[in-house]
Amino acid sequence: MANVLKTIRSGEDYIESLRGRDLKVYLFGELVKEPVDHPMIRPSINAVAETYDLALREEALASADSSITGLKVNRFLHIAESAEDLVLQNKMQRKLGQNTGTCFQRCVGMDAMNSLHSTTFEIDEKHGTDYHKRFLEFVKMVQQENLVIGGAMTDPKGDRSKGPSEQDDPDLFTRIVDTDEKGVYVSGAKAHQTGCINSHWIILMPTIRLTEADKDWAIVGAIPADAKGVTYIYGRQSCDTRSMEEGDIDDGNAKFGGQEALIILDRVFIPWDKVFMHGEYEFASMLVERFTCYHRRSYVCKTGLGDVLIGAAATIADYNGIPKVSHIKDKIIEMTHLNETIFAAGIASSHQGHKMKSGVYLNDDMLAQVCKHNVTRFPYEISRLAQDIAGGLVVTLPSEKDFRHPEAGPLLKKYLAGRKGVDVENRMRILRLIENMTLGRNAVGYLTESMHGAGSPQAQRIQIQRQMQVGYKKNLAKNLAGITNDVEEPKESSEYFKRVFKTKDSVL
Amino acid sequence: MANVLKTIRSGEDYIESLRGRDLKVYLFGELVKEPVDHPMIRPSINAVAETYDLALREEALASADSSITGLKVNRFLHIAESAEDLVLQNKMQRKLGQNTGTCFQRCVGMDAMNSLHSTTFEIDEKHGTDYHKRFLEFVKMVQQENLVIGGAMTDPKGDRSKGPSEQDDPDLFTRIVDTDEKGVYVSGAKAHQTGCINSHWIILMPTIRLTEADKDWAIVGAIPADAKGVTYIYGRQSCDTRSMEEGDIDDGNAKFGGQEALIILDRVFIPWDKVFMHGEYEFASMLVERFTCYHRRSYVCKTGLGDVLIGAAATIADYNGIPKVSHIKDKIIEMTHLNETIFAAGIASSHQGHKMKSGVYLNDDMLAQVCKHNVTRFPYEISRLAQDIAGGLVVTLPSEKDFRHPEAGPLLKKYLAGRKGVDVENRMRILRLIENMTLGRNAVGYLTESMHGAGSPQAQRIQIQRQMQVGYKKNLAKNLAGITNDVEEPKESSEYFKRVFKTKDSVL
Amino acid sequence: MANVLKTIRSGEDYIESLRGRDLKVYLFGELVKEPVDHPMIRPSINAVAETYDLALREEALASADSSITGLKVNRFLHIAESAEDLVLQNKMQRKLGQNTGTCFQRCVGMDAMNSLHSTTFEIDEKHGTDYHKRFLEFVKMVQQENLVIGGAMTDPKGDRSKGPSEQDDPDLFTRIVDTDEKGVYVSGAKAHQTGCINSHWIILMPTIRLTEADKDWAIVGAIPADAKGVTYIYGRQSCDTRSMEEGDIDDGNAKFGGQEALIILDRVFIPWDKVFMHGEYEFASMLVERFTCYHRRSYVCKTGLGDVLIGAAATIADYNGIPKVSHIKDKIIEMTHLNETIFAAGIASSHQGHKMKSGVYLNDDMLAQVCKHNVTRFPYEISRLAQDIAGGLVVTLPSEKDFRHPEAGPLLKKYLAGRKGVDVENRMRILRLIENMTLGRNAVGYLTESMHGAGSPQAQRIQIQRQMQVGYKKNLAKNLAGITNDVEEPKESSEYFKRVFKTKDSVL
Amino acid sequence: MANVLKTIRSGEDYIESLRGRDLKVYLFGELVKEPVDHPMIRPSINAVAETYDLALREEALASADSSITGLKVNRFLHIAESAEDLVLQNKMQRKLGQNTGTCFQRCVGMDAMNSLHSTTFEIDEKHGTDYHKRFLEFVKMVQQENLVIGGAMTDPKGDRSKGPSEQDDPDLFTRIVDTDEKGVYVSGAKAHQTGCINSHWIILMPTIRLTEADKDWAIVGAIPADAKGVTYIYGRQSCDTRSMEEGDIDDGNAKFGGQEALIILDRVFIPWDKVFMHGEYEFASMLVERFTCYHRRSYVCKTGLGDVLIGAAATIADYNGIPKVSHIKDKIIEMTHLNETIFAAGIASSHQGHKMKSGVYLNDDMLAQVCKHNVTRFPYEISRLAQDIAGGLVVTLPSEKDFRHPEAGPLLKKYLAGRKGVDVENRMRILRLIENMTLGRNAVGYLTESMHGAGSPQAQRIQIQRQMQVGYKKNLAKNLAGITNDVEEPKESSEYFKRVFKTKDSVL
Repeated sequence: MANVLKTIRSGEDYIESLRGRDLKVYLFGELVKEPVDHPMIRPSINAVAETYDLALREEALASADSSITGLKVNRFLHIAESAEDLVLQNKMQRKLGQNTGTCFQRCVGMDAMNSLHSTTFEIDEKHGTDYHKRFLEFVKMVQQENLVIGGAMTDPKGDRSKGPSEQDDPDLFTRIVDTDEKGVYVSGAKAHQTGCINSHWIILMPTIRLTEADKDWAIVGAIPADAKGVTYIYGRQSCDTRSMEEGDIDDGNAKFGGQEALIILDRVFIPWDKVFMHGEYEFASMLVERFTCYHRRSYVCKTGLGDVLIGAAATIADYNGIPKVSHIKDKIIEMTHLNETIFAAGIASSHQGHKMKSGVYLNDDMLAQVCKHNVTRFPYEISRLAQDIAGGLVVTLPSEKDFRHPEAGPLLKKYLAGRKGVDVENRMRILRLIENMTLGRNAVGYLTESMHGAGSPQAQRIQIQRQMQVGYKKNLAKNLAGITNDVEEPKESSEYFKRVFKTKDSVL
Repeated sequence: MANVLKTIRSGEDYIESLRGRDLKVYLFGELVKEPVDHPMIRPSINAVAETYDLALREEALASADSSITGLKVNRFLHIAESAEDLVLQNKMQRKLGQNTGTCFQRCVGMDAMNSLHSTTFEIDEKHGTDYHKRFLEFVKMVQQENLVIGGAMTDPKGDRSKGPSEQDDPDLFTRIVDTDEKGVYVSGAKAHQTGCINSHWIILMPTIRLTEADKDWAIVGAIPADAKGVTYIYGRQSCDTRSMEEGDIDDGNAKFGGQEALIILDRVFIPWDKVFMHGEYEFASMLVERFTCYHRRSYVCKTGLGDVLIGAAATIADYNGIPKVSHIKDKIIEMTHLNETIFAAGIASSHQGHKMKSGVYLNDDMLAQVCKHNVTRFPYEISRLAQDIAGGLVVTLPSEKDFRHPEAGPLLKKYLAGRKGVDVENRMRILRLIENMTLGRNAVGYLTESMHGAGSPQAQRIQIQRQMQVGYKKNLAKNLAGITNDVEEPKESSEYFKRVFKTKDSVL
Repeated sequence: MANVLKTIRSGEDYIESLRGRDLKVYLFGELVKEPVDHPMIRPSINAVAETYDLALREEALASADSSITGLKVNRFLHIAESAEDLVLQNKMQRKLGQNTGTCFQRCVGMDAMNSLHSTTFEIDEKHGTDYHKRFLEFVKMVQQENLVIGGAMTDPKGDRSKGPSEQDDPDLFTRIVDTDEKGVYVSGAKAHQTGCINSHWIILMPTIRLTEADKDWAIVGAIPADAKGVTYIYGRQSCDTRSMEEGDIDDGNAKFGGQEALIILDRVFIPWDKVFMHGEYEFASMLVERFTCYHRRSYVCKTGLGDVLIGAAATIADYNGIPKVSHIKDKIIEMTHLNETIFAAGIASSHQGHKMKSGVYLNDDMLAQVCKHNVTRFPYEISRLAQDIAGGLVVTLPSEKDFRHPEAGPLLKKYLAGRKGVDVENRMRILRLIENMTLGRNAVGYLTESMHGAGSPQAQRIQIQRQMQVGYKKNLAKNLAGITNDVEEPKESSEYFKRVFKTKDSVL
Repeated sequence: MANVLKTIRSGEDYIESLRGRDLKVYLFGELVKEPVDHPMIRPSINAVAETYDLALREEALASADSSITGLKVNRFLHIAESAEDLVLQNKMQRKLGQNTGTCFQRCVGMDAMNSLHSTTFEIDEKHGTDYHKRFLEFVKMVQQENLVIGGAMTDPKGDRSKGPSEQDDPDLFTRIVDTDEKGVYVSGAKAHQTGCINSHWIILMPTIRLTEADKDWAIVGAIPADAKGVTYIYGRQSCDTRSMEEGDIDDGNAKFGGQEALIILDRVFIPWDKVFMHGEYEFASMLVERFTCYHRRSYVCKTGLGDVLIGAAATIADYNGIPKVSHIKDKIIEMTHLNETIFAAGIASSHQGHKMKSGVYLNDDMLAQVCKHNVTRFPYEISRLAQDIAGGLVVTLPSEKDFRHPEAGPLLKKYLAGRKGVDVENRMRILRLIENMTLGRNAVGYLTESMHGAGSPQAQRIQIQRQMQVGYKKNLAKNLAGITNDVEEPKESSEYFKRVFKTKDSVL
């Protein structure tokens, strides 16, 4: 069958599938000829390739049986059919974080697809539309061909005190600029796009709650990454050009990295069968909230990076000859404690997942916020502790070129010797990995993306506030304090405590 | 049947069941006549009574179907038959924390029984003994009669740098002093015993890893709380005597409280059928580790207390007229975030539970440590924030007697008025509840017990260290750093990451 | 001269001077006959007595040469004549904290007098009044007689969203109710009054910024503590009644304690020569800000309490036999680090003091806020660490009465033995001191008063915001970032950086 | 006079003075021809130049009257003659941090000279040597010529569990390899050397406590930066090569940066008149401790960088259109609070300075540790908050080259528009400055150097432990707890509390 022939299987297949596309990518003021071969872009492609290879090596972890196609599919393309499926997403995310030490960029697409499953179903239910069916067809296609899906949500936003229709420039939020019998045409941009140039398809989604005046901005649709009218401007990362230097030590993590770009859309066409929302503005917030519910829990991936950084810190302590000093051990314990605290909240959120009308499972929202909110704090502290253990050399180490130089090299080997038996090059490599994750290229993903990805800290706090059921808790307090004349039934839309005290079905 | 007649059903039944026992309890230098009627002791009995009443009101949450007796039993007496059973323990614990605002004292017994299920099985397996069968008979009896089981582990320890057999006074760890054909005789003491005087049976267990020289200290057995030779010396709590004053405002939480006592054992007899370990010293550490694994995750109960304190803080903010001030809202969000972070680790640990040889489920140990370790930190910060929101009046409020006085009372009503429409007495009640939980009687349970119960912070750190698989993580780092000549397979006994990446059976 | 005869010298003199006054003090619904002899009140009097005795024992530290009277006066009565005088206030405060382990209650008066020195001067300058002269006469009298001055600022405030003149009940802020040729008559109340019943004079001051409509509330004046129309309702503290029990162990700190009361003023008369502000509402905020500037830095006293608690933690670690365990040492270091961080900010604020128009020195305001703000955080963490080190016995220890009992006592001595050679009674005493400072009576002063005294945390944040010169800092950033077309001179009233970079006179 | 002619006055003079020296500097595997003109090195030279220019612009702040030469000298070359001189060092350091946003690299030399003043005096006192006189001659020379002095302390250390004489390679600590009538010859290396290539003279000092066996390593001496036998291998910094790209936006801070190099010494000659210690091994620890005492307090400079980062955060909040949102304001307040907490400890340490036998003033050691220890924590949190406020664009911003590109540039201007009226280039500049200080080149100085410079966190904790007078504090606790039979006079060498309670001379 045609599909079989086209199906991507390995990371290698995937990399090949990206070649030869007509992408318009700006980087350092020039158009990139073939992103796959650009040394600064390639590590981000390698990271996605690992998501394919893991599914081959550890099938139970990184793939799933889809009842939509009846196929064993990559878990990133799977619609969660149980709370346990949500838990397994977390487990796969941690493993990929461990294997790549960076953002592997496929969670946005996975979380977008899962949130669209229920949202399109509920739009149809109200409006009698057929978005859900279209969406299922799209899912079938990507599951069969085993494609990478990017999700594009964040608009540039312009003046943040104004909504889409109030901006001076209407393009500051992506919008429908034209419609015809074949489909719609959209213009605008999506900022900070993780994993776009290395995706096959990109799903465009609104980024905030919309009002009736914002109807033209209420558009969800899928476009090929190389659709006509799409321009990418590649973002800089700390230390990005080290990948363009000779050698591989100074990179820290030469193989894997992340990727962010600004995507500009200039009258990009979306055929009707790839349109999953069109004007139903009142569903924008539902989509955003469900997406962020999935996605904030997906930040469990950072515990995999945490594992790498803890391992790096323990290794450098060993190379420095001080692995058993009590304050060093204590710091590694603390790093672990913080890392596992993040993990726990993700697992708990997934475990508390519940079934939506469309059949997909959605994890617990409160605990997803808690997971992500800890991610905006603890990686910074883990990183600080890693630098503490590493010692000052992590930022004063000379270049690999000096290390390879016939005169400077031997001097470095003499004077950077640590504990007996430690290879100076290995010591340099571990220090560069710590630099990479705490200041360099993957610090972007481990720290700043941990802060802002899937919503900044304040976004989580607002969501926690909405769900924390203060009225319910006030009654608990009043009851114990003996207050009887000031108790009333709270009117709170949150169902958090209902889920907390649910006794069945949660994971079955 | 006789058993049916004896079965305790309600909290009221339970309280009656405690009357008339021949207990020897010292309090303020006197023997207490009837603990049930002592105003300082009663609140701790009320808290246990609520564990019965909850099982009647919310059966699915607080009881379970036992395959041992085939009965619907109180969940505190249930041997966990699935990971979901462990999760439901946590949910029940949170609910009881909400309902009582204090330590309800039954988790030790529950966790002791669950850990003895697997430990007795494994002792028998090695030694050909029949402890497991004896233990199951004990379980049947307590399930049928619906009794409260206390677990007594913590020995006084004396000089902490010495083991049991090395102490000057051998009684500083509880030990066998005599044996005959009917059973064994034990002497010694158990310190900080939560929920002892209000239990029906107490299970004695060793508190640390034992060596061959400590064989006489390797004893596990069950005794009735009123066994001959048992003396209790009741511990003081902050503000304990307020319960003996007139009125109920100054108590803060007049109905519920905790209880700790020093139990002294003077040749207390245990018949053979109630002996579950006798000299198999090498299993002491297994028992202690499994018990603390269950019990550190049981500290999820404190999130229920946290809910009460958050509710109290929100109520006083309302009474003070400032519920919408941004820094107040922000502090309540932070309290919630911390509280739910604790909860998440408990749920995750339970969810990751696995089946033991004996059939009982044991929660994940690493995540149990993480749960408890956060409990040694966050309640203190939640408490600090509650005091911040409460205002200084929480520690300068005059007594209820002044409030009831014909001259002072009206002055207080005039000058302690807050927002219009707020009853001054209600304001006082909420402030006293906050005092109760942050400085007073239930601060003992919410703060200090959170620190030391189930092991002090350092105990968790040691356990985290044992399980953190640094070798595995070092390899992750070395692999990404490009180190190839210094990688070896770690020899680590911990199975933490095996469980993390387990793909099936975890919750089934 | 008569004055010489009346001068109080020692703590003993002071205690005698308090006897026989006609004070109306409610406590537990009864009028107290002689506060000096009430076991619950006496510890707060003892703490003030120590301020006299210290001045005798360490004259250079606790007294000063006053240029107003030409006398060597108690430092609490001294008007600061140099930045070094401010620094010496801090040093004395720390010493008294060390000596009493509680709030010694005289700083409010000291800080009130120093802030009135400059404020009365500046009112006179504008309005041609003679408040400053009256005030100096008052200072002379109290210096000559060596009296204790209380400062009363905090009004009950009622509905916190409303100002004094907008309240339903005008008495919720203290106000002038009548005026005649002899003086003024005030009604209202002052809440949370530390050190009032044990003062000789109380200075009444407004608590917030006032508007023209609040003119009647713009009153500053001094009244004798036993003035007609004054009623005190004594506040409860955690564990307060332990001082009324037999024995002294359970108290923790039997000798010293704090005191807070609600003061109610019913047409209390102030003669004109004791009135220091009368209607000049626009100076209310100046007085409040200067007072809080002095007073927030006065919280350096808590480092003295911190020293005691660190010493207690180190002692119990020793008694438990584990003083050299690395995590214990590390926690004591952390406690010290936090404690000294507080101290440093106080000293820095005082050192950066500057001379006011009236001649008095005022410490740096920004650093005073920083000092107090750390005080709202670090004592809680120090306290948490002390409980960690202490072990669970700090909250489960039986009563002194049990310890003295002929049967229970020996059992306690046997089973509470720690390291060899440690007296069990001493172990109990130190544990009770830790309980006293972290949950009990002096936790009120060490924790909750640290939070709310001299203004709650948010008050410091507002004050930091006012002074942080964001405009100045934005220019620093723009300059380094190479921004040239968006730089403008900030209009900021704060002079913080002027003081930071001041090169002369600061300490001379 | 010749000296007048040679004296460097301005930053420009200074830069010229560095040209044409015969330095052997490796960078990226090549020898640098003229460091002054190397774009990657120049910013570190500019930062030092600012220390000259500041002394011209703000003489009272950045220069001082030296009683050694009778000249007005740059404060970096001044021997502190009062506690106020120490305070003024801190003030100058903060100002230079504000002006450069980086490490200006002269504090090591200043602190080395001040510590040598007292140490050489005390060596002479014991050994009858004349190091102090030689040292004063050196000071005269550098004051007259107004030179930059680098201080080189940190040896590579090799196996950290071994001392200098125990290493396999004796060169891992700098040592005397030969001596003749003219002077000594030293070999070895100094690692992480801040401000070396841009110094005129470098003072070599031992890095740890030495034993008699380490006599050959007990060498202090001054060498010209371009002495024969000296090789520099330049350290890499995060994003270092951006300074070698076209444009100045992507640099973040194009003008100023830091510098670290590994200095290798191969039989470098030091004439006797520049030798300040030679074999008096027992004084090595005194020198190290005094140096770190000065230097840990010198980290007050980081508050100047903190001011810049706070300003940058406030600016980007403004450009984003959200400067008045409460959580943004609150975060800026928190950043300020933490920054000023650091400042306060520096000022307090300096203020508590005391006079040494040689006449130089030494700041308080405990408070210096506290200052530096906060520096190992708070800049990380300030940096995290800055990233929070900045938004994700701080790590996804495209390059300046894209911004200058005829097609990509206008797209960026359109889509990166923030609040109306904000120049997109300015927005980019501020974001790049935040990147520079939190991940990029100056994050090296603001974060990692804050961690490890002047000793890693554990070094401060050890020093705090040595000085915290636990015995004194235990007595405070025992006294208040009523313990009378277990009090003894502590034998503690620390004089911390003597200084705390010193009443005179501290600042005079």
